[in-house]
Amino acid sequence: MSGTMSPRQASAAVLVGLLAAVSLGLITILSVWKLKQFKYGLKINETGGAMFYGMLLGLIVRCLSFDRGVHVENMESVCSCGALNSTPYIFMVNISSHGHCYRQDLNQRCPPISTPHMDIFDLEVLFNLFLPPIIFHGAYTLNQKRFIGNLGSVLTFAFLGTIISCMTIGACVYGFTRLMVLLGRAADGDFSLTDCLLFGAIMSATDPVSVLGLLSELRVDLDLHTLLFGESVLNDAVAIVLTHAIYTYSQMGAGHTFDPPAFLHSVCYFLGVLAGSLLLGFIFTVITALLTKFTRLHESPLLETSVLFLLSWSSFLSAEASGLSGIVAMLFCGLSQARYTIHNLSSEGRTRTKQLFEVFNFLGEIFIFSYMGYVLLMFPDHVFKALFISGAFLSIFISRACNVYPLSFLLNLGRTNKIPSAYQHFMMFAGLRGAVALSLAVRDTSTEVRRTILTTTLLLVCFTIWVLGTAAEPMLRHLNIRVGVDAEENPEEDLPFERRPPTRTPPTLPAPVPSSPPSRLFHLLIWPHSYLHTVNGTRSGQLPGVMRPEGQTE
Amino acid sequence: MSGTMSPRQASAAVLVGLLAAVSLGLITILSVWKLKQFKYGLKINETGGAMFYGMLLGLIVRCLSFDRGVHVENMESVCSCGALNSTPYIFMVNISSHGHCYRQDLNQRCPPISTPHMDIFDLEVLFNLFLPPIIFHGAYTLNQKRFIGNLGSVLTFAFLGTIISCMTIGACVYGFTRLMVLLGRAADGDFSLTDCLLFGAIMSATDPVSVLGLLSELRVDLDLHTLLFGESVLNDAVAIVLTHAIYTYSQMGAGHTFDPPAFLHSVCYFLGVLAGSLLLGFIFTVITALLTKFTRLHESPLLETSVLFLLSWSSFLSAEASGLSGIVAMLFCGLSQARYTIHNLSSEGRTRTKQLFEVFNFLGEIFIFSYMGYVLLMFPDHVFKALFISGAFLSIFISRACNVYPLSFLLNLGRTNKIPSAYQHFMMFAGLRGAVALSLAVRDTSTEVRRTILTTTLLLVCFTIWVLGTAAEPMLRHLNIRVGVDAEENPEEDLPFERRPPTRTPPTLPAPVPSSPPSRLFHLLIWPHSYLHTVNGTRSGQLPGVMRPEGQTE
Repeated sequence: MSGTMSPRQASAAVLVGLLAAVSLGLITILSVWKLKQFKYGLKINETGGAMFYGMLLGLIVRCLSFDRGVHVENMESVCSCGALNSTPYIFMVNISSHGHCYRQDLNQRCPPISTPHMDIFDLEVLFNLFLPPIIFHGAYTLNQKRFIGNLGSVLTFAFLGTIISCMTIGACVYGFTRLMVLLGRAADGDFSLTDCLLFGAIMSATDPVSVLGLLSELRVDLDLHTLLFGESVLNDAVAIVLTHAIYTYSQMGAGHTFDPPAFLHSVCYFLGVLAGSLLLGFIFTVITALLTKFTRLHESPLLETSVLFLLSWSSFLSAEASGLSGIVAMLFCGLSQARYTIHNLSSEGRTRTKQLFEVFNFLGEIFIFSYMGYVLLMFPDHVFKALFISGAFLSIFISRACNVYPLSFLLNLGRTNKIPSAYQHFMMFAGLRGAVALSLAVRDTSTEVRRTILTTTLLLVCFTIWVLGTAAEPMLRHLNIRVGVDAEENPEEDLPFERRPPTRTPPTLPAPVPSSPPSRLFHLLIWPHSYLHTVNGTRSGQLPGVMRPEGQTE
Repeated sequence: MSGTMSPRQASAAVLVGLLAAVSLGLITILSVWKLKQFKYGLKINETGGAMFYGMLLGLIVRCLSFDRGVHVENMESVCSCGALNSTPYIFMVNISSHGHCYRQDLNQRCPPISTPHMDIFDLEVLFNLFLPPIIFHGAYTLNQKRFIGNLGSVLTFAFLGTIISCMTIGACVYGFTRLMVLLGRAADGDFSLTDCLLFGAIMSATDPVSVLGLLSELRVDLDLHTLLFGESVLNDAVAIVLTHAIYTYSQMGAGHTFDPPAFLHSVCYFLGVLAGSLLLGFIFTVITALLTKFTRLHESPLLETSVLFLLSWSSFLSAEASGLSGIVAMLFCGLSQARYTIHNLSSEGRTRTKQLFEVFNFLGEIFIFSYMGYVLLMFPDHVFKALFISGAFLSIFISRACNVYPLSFLLNLGRTNKIPSAYQHFMMFAGLRGAVALSLAVRDTSTEVRRTILTTTLLLVCFTIWVLGTAAEPMLRHLNIRVGVDAEENPEEDLPFERRPPTRTPPTLPAPVPSSPPSRLFHLLIWPHSYLHTVNGTRSGQLPGVMRPEGQTE
């Protein structure tokens, strides 16, 4: 009715957009679910399906609006306003009998002309709304015991691995850009090393959303799950901060030569943002934990859930607003909420929180990926550079290999439960890229180089999600890795590995004993539970004083 | 991080807005919950609290931005562009060395100059996002058995009552506007009768959100609950369509004299929109019911919940997009989903759906009301007309009395279980106004009359929510109406009234036998269940073939 009563086209556009999103979501859910029921059908998951339908919609909209492009040619008739010597705040234009007012403020100003005026703003809003619950859900439902057990390896892959990956992709792509210059496909100086490293950092973010989709679909062995998912979640944090550090470095004018002060500044920035975001996420957990411990909030599961949801989301928003990384803050908030706050919730509150985030995660995933597919086809200024794209495709495999195999070898020297080679092959294979890589690539599309990066990122995201994502199940079978493990209902989860009943495929990983026991400082960080969580023996049926990680209580 | 990497102020503004909303939500939840714990404290509910904090935020923002108003004075320096004879699509301005591009499209065009360029667009987005789950939740959790039992009365109050209310308020306010003309406070012709009737229609929408908040807080007797809530939900539908019909009538140039063709057109429009919206809501229910009946969607509660959520939301969006009333469609969709689809869901899916909508409802309510408080203080063009406001205050009481007492008297002639006078007094009292009235008032603020209406509506909403909402509990005690009834856990719900155990205050209403049994046609409409819901005896523990309304299965 809003459309007709007073013709607010803006509101109508939002309405149509929402309707399109909801319809895409429905079609994705139903068709992917139907596809999964065929035994020999395509084992595509929701992210891939959503992206496909998004692209289809983009194609349709593009075809339909093709002949409407004539509007833009009006530009020539615009006269110059010589009397203006500053940017006006309000801009009034008298055209025939209508008065129009163009206001330049935070909301209604177009980006500078050189930037393609596309739905990038919308995409950021979408990320602000849907990424936090997805990241939170991933961290919140991560099996805490396994995570702590594999923490050393996860951190190694996430930190060292991401830096290796960034360097390798950067070097490899830089090689290809030199080849482009040699072949005359690009001018010398078009692509600096910093640009290539930036691309490397962007492409190092393996996507927790699609990796999680893949893993929970196949329900692989819990240790492999923890390694892969823990890595993909934490390396986002590293990749985001790394991208920003490289960006800062290049902004400081150090494009082509090495500039030690700028480099030092970037490194400090990297560490500062990382530490700040971790701290912020933890602060919000402390607030939630204290609030749920010392008040009678647990009497109303609805309030518990709402407060937990709002406080966790606040950690993301505060971090973004204060120039830190929201995803890192949200991630650490999720991890620590699952460690401390969850024990203070009533059992209904616990289930509700999990289910709420599950729905948000599921729908958010679908919306984000369908929108990504849509943007891929609707973005008007794609720059396809065949050599750059081939270089990028090659580099992500090389970098993944340089990341997984050497690090696994090094880790296996210290681990009592080695990472078997089958796992290494699968980890090499499972580096899907997704929303975070895109959100990094989309943030600056002002130059041709940046638009080349965006186009290439979109293509790589599509490729990894569709090809690698669909091939994951046959790959697992081929590698003899057991699937169909249920993380929550697994009765033998607490048993040592040797005493577990045999499963479909023979287990290949020994008992999950922490390979390198966490240090004393780390202990203090990870187990200050007596201050933050009550054990609530009476409420959840546990014995008071016994600390039980989340995976066991559920 | 988005703020610093490439300075997207738009995204930053969204971020700050979200952070403010989340913080307001948290403060509201915690402070209202704390207030409720004091025995003799203020029994304010979340809607009132949210509105208060929203106003507080508005006050702070207003004070802080007071000295920034200087920007606007730039307006004089704008030169006229004589060469333009049509509205340009893209507007380029060269100012010093920067090029700026003002694009006029769906998203970036300011409203015409006469309209105050305020957050009205945001408000509509907010309504599109949060009103549907609130309305759906209300309809979905309505006790079906009682609703059917009291349907005749509810429909009478909703249809006849709203029309009476609209006429009375219109007449009363028209009287006051004549007084204003007599006293020289307004020019003759400022307020037409149609304007007054429009205000009457806007103010006839008693708010299901705040009424529900009040009722579930106090847990009043189920029949009173059904009467009040059913009325407030259905009369929204009537008030919305009525407002639109009057608007159409006034648009047809029939402002001051009675114009039979325009009137007939409006009446047809009223009936058409109402019927169309009902039908659309029902169509989406049929799709959901068939989908959940004939597929194995119930194997995954997550999918069930997502599909139900998306399909129900679609009914709202489709109705709005096709010029019908989204709220009416959503309402009927909720009612019919609870009647048919719910029986096809797995028991986990049922709980999940309810809990999901409960959270959405709770948070949406808080966001909407805090935003309403914020708008009240931030809207720059309030028009306070003391006489109009006093007339409006008086009229809502008169109209409510003209609505409740005569209709109750008429209904009691036919009902076997009479509506006792205590209930009538409370119904008279519980006509809270809220989000729907505001959403109607905000849709057109182009003239001074419309802005007077908006200001008055905001004041009335505040008054009814704070004063009437807070006084409801003492009022109930004074009227000896029993409170503390739990709709879901009430063991004696199925017993005839005489056999119920005595409660705190003596019951005053006889057994809930349907006073006027629904007609045969109505029966066909309400009970075609064999086609739409499986009874799933095996799944939910019921006997196959037995139709049980929702209230009993839970």
